[in-house]
Amino acid sequence: MMPHVVIVGGGFGGLAVARRLRRAPVRITLIDKRNFHLFQPLLYQVATGGLGPAEIAAPLRSLFRKQRNVRVLCAEVVDINPQTRALTLHDGQVIDWDYLVIAAGAAYHYFGHEEWAQHAPGLKTIEDAEAIRRRVLSALEAAERETDPERRQAWLNFVIVGGGPTGVELAGALAELVHVTVRDEYRAYDPRTARVVLLEGAPRLLTAYPEPLSENARRSLQQLGVEVVTGAHVEQVAPGRVVYKRGEEVYEFAAQVVLWAAGVCAVPLAQVLAERTGAPTDRLGRVIVEPDLSVPNHRRIFVIGDMAHYAHQTGAPLPGVAPVAMQQGQYVAQRILNELQGKPTPPFRYWDKGDMAVIGRKAAVARIGRLRLTGWFAWLIWLFVHLMFLVGFENRLLVLIQWAWNYFTRNRRARLITGEPYTPSLSADSLPDRYSVSCSKE
Amino acid sequence: MMPHVVIVGGGFGGLAVARRLRRAPVRITLIDKRNFHLFQPLLYQVATGGLGPAEIAAPLRSLFRKQRNVRVLCAEVVDINPQTRALTLHDGQVIDWDYLVIAAGAAYHYFGHEEWAQHAPGLKTIEDAEAIRRRVLSALEAAERETDPERRQAWLNFVIVGGGPTGVELAGALAELVHVTVRDEYRAYDPRTARVVLLEGAPRLLTAYPEPLSENARRSLQQLGVEVVTGAHVEQVAPGRVVYKRGEEVYEFAAQVVLWAAGVCAVPLAQVLAERTGAPTDRLGRVIVEPDLSVPNHRRIFVIGDMAHYAHQTGAPLPGVAPVAMQQGQYVAQRILNELQGKPTPPFRYWDKGDMAVIGRKAAVARIGRLRLTGWFAWLIWLFVHLMFLVGFENRLLVLIQWAWNYFTRNRRARLITGEPYTPSLSADSLPDRYSVSCSKE
Repeated sequence: MMPHVVIVGGGFGGLAVARRLRRAPVRITLIDKRNFHLFQPLLYQVATGGLGPAEIAAPLRSLFRKQRNVRVLCAEVVDINPQTRALTLHDGQVIDWDYLVIAAGAAYHYFGHEEWAQHAPGLKTIEDAEAIRRRVLSALEAAERETDPERRQAWLNFVIVGGGPTGVELAGALAELVHVTVRDEYRAYDPRTARVVLLEGAPRLLTAYPEPLSENARRSLQQLGVEVVTGAHVEQVAPGRVVYKRGEEVYEFAAQVVLWAAGVCAVPLAQVLAERTGAPTDRLGRVIVEPDLSVPNHRRIFVIGDMAHYAHQTGAPLPGVAPVAMQQGQYVAQRILNELQGKPTPPFRYWDKGDMAVIGRKAAVARIGRLRLTGWFAWLIWLFVHLMFLVGFENRLLVLIQWAWNYFTRNRRARLITGEPYTPSLSADSLPDRYSVSCSKE
Repeated sequence: MMPHVVIVGGGFGGLAVARRLRRAPVRITLIDKRNFHLFQPLLYQVATGGLGPAEIAAPLRSLFRKQRNVRVLCAEVVDINPQTRALTLHDGQVIDWDYLVIAAGAAYHYFGHEEWAQHAPGLKTIEDAEAIRRRVLSALEAAERETDPERRQAWLNFVIVGGGPTGVELAGALAELVHVTVRDEYRAYDPRTARVVLLEGAPRLLTAYPEPLSENARRSLQQLGVEVVTGAHVEQVAPGRVVYKRGEEVYEFAAQVVLWAAGVCAVPLAQVLAERTGAPTDRLGRVIVEPDLSVPNHRRIFVIGDMAHYAHQTGAPLPGVAPVAMQQGQYVAQRILNELQGKPTPPFRYWDKGDMAVIGRKAAVARIGRLRLTGWFAWLIWLFVHLMFLVGFENRLLVLIQWAWNYFTRNRRARLITGEPYTPSLSADSLPDRYSVSCSKE
């Protein structure tokens, strides 16, 4: 029987492994909790009503319909046994493997305050994006019905915690949504009085990028009306309010909608793997892998993507971005192929093509090798790169039409409050006693 | 101050009233629980993964952005007081009116067995459509993991209760999904072994249509592999099984997915209105209206669309379809305008342009006046009419592209299991003891 390669996770990393092995003499089983691949870099567009979920997702079975050596299983892996080379699924089924590739991604963490999650949703899944969309749009609706000015303003204050690429993109899109798209749609208030506040703990935004790009991102966001507060450490997230510290000063801000784009950590499966294999993990729960991306002492178990801590190249772990996951997936596939053919494989090396983040409707910052780009041209490149990587021809076409439409009309069609009946969460006691609305426009 | 027209419900009826009054010297408040207009006739496409929710919905605020005499409120009406001419919203807010138009639509009813609702979802909302999509796709996934042939078949048996237009359209789309779209996507079984069974209590499908069209619909469905069982009265819907009676014979059918497209009734607001105004209702809870669509003894309260029972024209109540609601909405708007100008208005008359139902990828049945059409040509007309009525240019374009894609590739892109983590509901005890899989292919 042909060797069995089991891949856990249908994200960028898992897909890259399966595709690279399409002509290989192996059987592949791809296991994912969800039945679709999700293009996470565009999730913020779903959260702000610019795109629908199906436009940034593709059914896994559809992607592998013609690749007959792939079997897709829609299931959750609950245990891993390296001795017997077997996985256990949520329903008790046991799957044997010859090679195991784990690429199950990351989740948000709340710096030890997991109770904040209910008040400040993160942005990792379709459901997260729909929850954010629901909160944002419901707040605008509640403001239309609210007659007390102070309470209304609390519905119109939006806080985003975390100034990395996700926070920056979300803040830009949110500012456009509330200040531009819905400008003429409410009768009881002017949506331009809505405030979008981006809180970042570090002294600058986009800390992984060169400093001039951070400065440019800040200016572009401010032009969109985003209030950027750096050096702000969140101390409390509660219904209707955020408390943060800046230096010695403590600020309390009344806001009904708080969104989380701060810390990420590995999914719980990383912990299971570490316990079963004795693999070391870093403080974010990521598995510290060997130069060939395998788990120490388990040459046929690989961890790639956001779950892996790979620091052999530069000393610092590689960032949790799609290009890293894809290159690691291709590497592991090649590594398995070489081993089957008795050939050696040199250690993994990441080829860093650059980073980019988009800010609103026509600005972006990008680093491509040593090149730094900002503004409209960077935005065009961002658009091109993201369209090219969207899986499936039809999605690309639909997203392009949608974007063209959004760009020219400044409308956002997918502004639906769905998932649960509309029930505003505000009650008298959920508002803080005093409002020190003190985020300064810097 | 200008007269205040309050419209409850942003469906076809409510929109028609507001649009017809766009240049009228009135203030309009449009109240809906949801923030979007939903094109219900295409919901079955969302349920079967052909379209995404945003493609058949349009935000109400976006539709009325430029109509400055309309104020949209996203709220639920919980009480109506005809004496003070005031409505109460879910949050206690009170809205006064001079004219009240109630167009809040219909809901499914389960012939007194409301406990069936959890096992057999209906198809009225976006959430319903997503729930059906989740159940259908999850069943196909469960079948891929199931090794026992009898249990697998229970996952692959789909039952639709109700052979009206919704049931017929849903059955056709579902048969295409399981027999054609996913044909090459599973490795453990052949999806063509899936069975789609349509149960109808009457002796024929589409009872509101001329008999030859019913016969044609049955044949078209059977060509798609749907098993049509007429004269079947459902006696029980439980997890994993449906029991129905046909003549004296009782049949039990093992099926994990049961969908409900049978009885509809008015939403509970109709009952509130009837209690407050003393208006008569029919057995489906619809308000029996006057020839001018007003509530008896309340000349300034109108009920239109699926909530209204209007039998003055033909003796039988008009059907709950979009054209009736739209024409009634236009009539009521004109009736209000005439009254403001001191002019009389003749009674409402429905101009029946016809009916149509689509069956799968390229067949439909249509009655246009005295003309009866079937097959591919009827399908083209169905396509054209539905595209024309889709609200908003962009939706039309996107839906057209999507349909063209689905038509030529037989793919369905929006096949996402969303809304809750994937958790198969089958446990050993949820399966019936014996399987009398006895739906005959007629």
